[in-house]
Amino acid sequence: MRIALGISYLGSAYQGWQSQPSGRTVQDQLEKALAQFADRPVSTLCAGRTDAGVHGLMQVVHFDTEVERVMNSWVRGSNRYLPDDIAVQWAHVVPAAFHCRASAIARRYAYVLLESPVRPSLDSGRVGWVFRPLDQAAMEEAAQHLLGQHDFSSFRAAQCQALSPVKDLRRIDISRHGAYWRFEFEASAFLHHMIRNIMGCLLAVGQGLRTPDWMAEVRDARSREIAAPTFSPDGLYFLGPRYEPHWGLPDSVAGFDWLPG
Amino acid sequence: MRIALGISYLGSAYQGWQSQPSGRTVQDQLEKALAQFADRPVSTLCAGRTDAGVHGLMQVVHFDTEVERVMNSWVRGSNRYLPDDIAVQWAHVVPAAFHCRASAIARRYAYVLLESPVRPSLDSGRVGWVFRPLDQAAMEEAAQHLLGQHDFSSFRAAQCQALSPVKDLRRIDISRHGAYWRFEFEASAFLHHMIRNIMGCLLAVGQGLRTPDWMAEVRDARSREIAAPTFSPDGLYFLGPRYEPHWGLPDSVAGFDWLPG
Repeated sequence: MRIALGISYLGSAYQGWQSQPSGRTVQDQLEKALAQFADRPVSTLCAGRTDAGVHGLMQVVHFDTEVERVMNSWVRGSNRYLPDDIAVQWAHVVPAAFHCRASAIARRYAYVLLESPVRPSLDSGRVGWVFRPLDQAAMEEAAQHLLGQHDFSSFRAAQCQALSPVKDLRRIDISRHGAYWRFEFEASAFLHHMIRNIMGCLLAVGQGLRTPDWMAEVRDARSREIAAPTFSPDGLYFLGPRYEPHWGLPDSVAGFDWLPG
Repeated sequence: MRIALGISYLGSAYQGWQSQPSGRTVQDQLEKALAQFADRPVSTLCAGRTDAGVHGLMQVVHFDTEVERVMNSWVRGSNRYLPDDIAVQWAHVVPAAFHCRASAIARRYAYVLLESPVRPSLDSGRVGWVFRPLDQAAMEEAAQHLLGQHDFSSFRAAQCQALSPVKDLRRIDISRHGAYWRFEFEASAFLHHMIRNIMGCLLAVGQGLRTPDWMAEVRDARSREIAAPTFSPDGLYFLGPRYEPHWGLPDSVAGFDWLPG
């Protein structure tokens, strides 16, 4: 039987999603909790690996198991063993043809940013921070240069393992909510560090250090050399993958309503 | 010279505001940072002591000092020495007649609550939690019984040091924002645990365990005996005191925009 789970977590305390010998990753915590509940080892695959410090609103994983339990007890049972900053939101039986990564037709991320003369405090680790005022129109103009299918090598980390740097970036929405900005991204898939690298460039434009057209130059260079530095992971939230409706998986979690906007 | 500071902090890691021998309180952290910046001891008074786990969006403190610095350097200087989850938002010179507690004409708090079948994860420690659906109209009707000047002994902790249990509760606003509820309170002053005790009662009504009129019975009993248990500190935010405008102090901080609604 194949089971899919929706997971939400605060990434601040973890060395990213992917299992490591240290055991201090979200996947390690999840698999340990699932094993305690199922009383045997459980191996999961995820829809999108997140880096250290990056948060997940609806990570999706799947695993195969012979253990027969009602779906809701997978939720309550694993949450009993998970740390406070990780929770399983739902569990669904899926056909063996479902694959959390391969079946995803899109991925969504949000970046939340505090614009303030004073650094974050209550929201430390949960928002990026700029102290200079940002120009929304300039950032929106710059973002236009990234929409559609492009070679995103300029925004790709050296250690990225993707087969191709060509991705289809379908949406960048920029909105302001009081002192907070919300940047929302949707693409076929993202390269390693792609959003944090795009954020670095958008903020260079938003702060008037670069013109909006510079974003096209960066894109066309297909090299990290002229792009802005990788921006902080603190404000980055994986909103989750999108699947065809016929799989019958939930599309949202309660935590979405916490983000500004 | 008397200086007033606006402070924001996440209370999760601290044993409340008030200085303790352990040193693990917000006041201890603040006074240590101020002393490092000013290069001599600094003693502060605050507008509203918060309990362990309660957060502050705009705590106000004052202190007297002979140290002459431009106001903005008090902000940047102390933030350099403060932990990530505490920040000074502003510093203003105030007349010697100003007293952060005695000059306050009102205090404001917000309680943020997650209504979800699944416990908090990303927002663990920052929200209260109920898994049963809440009835907004019933809670609003119950809240009406508390507005105005009353003896709030039924909502007062045994260790409360206030001279009188009579307070003027001027406003309770209840609003829903997706999976989150926001309760906002304004009063002349609050007794120890008063909001957490009111929240326990409001949620008993909201979940249908009690009728709205029961709130009047609890109020009139002037005893903790029939009231609901003290609710969790996790979702409680001190929004700050109000002062007469002639003192010239700021009325809001960037962090307000982080709360749902």
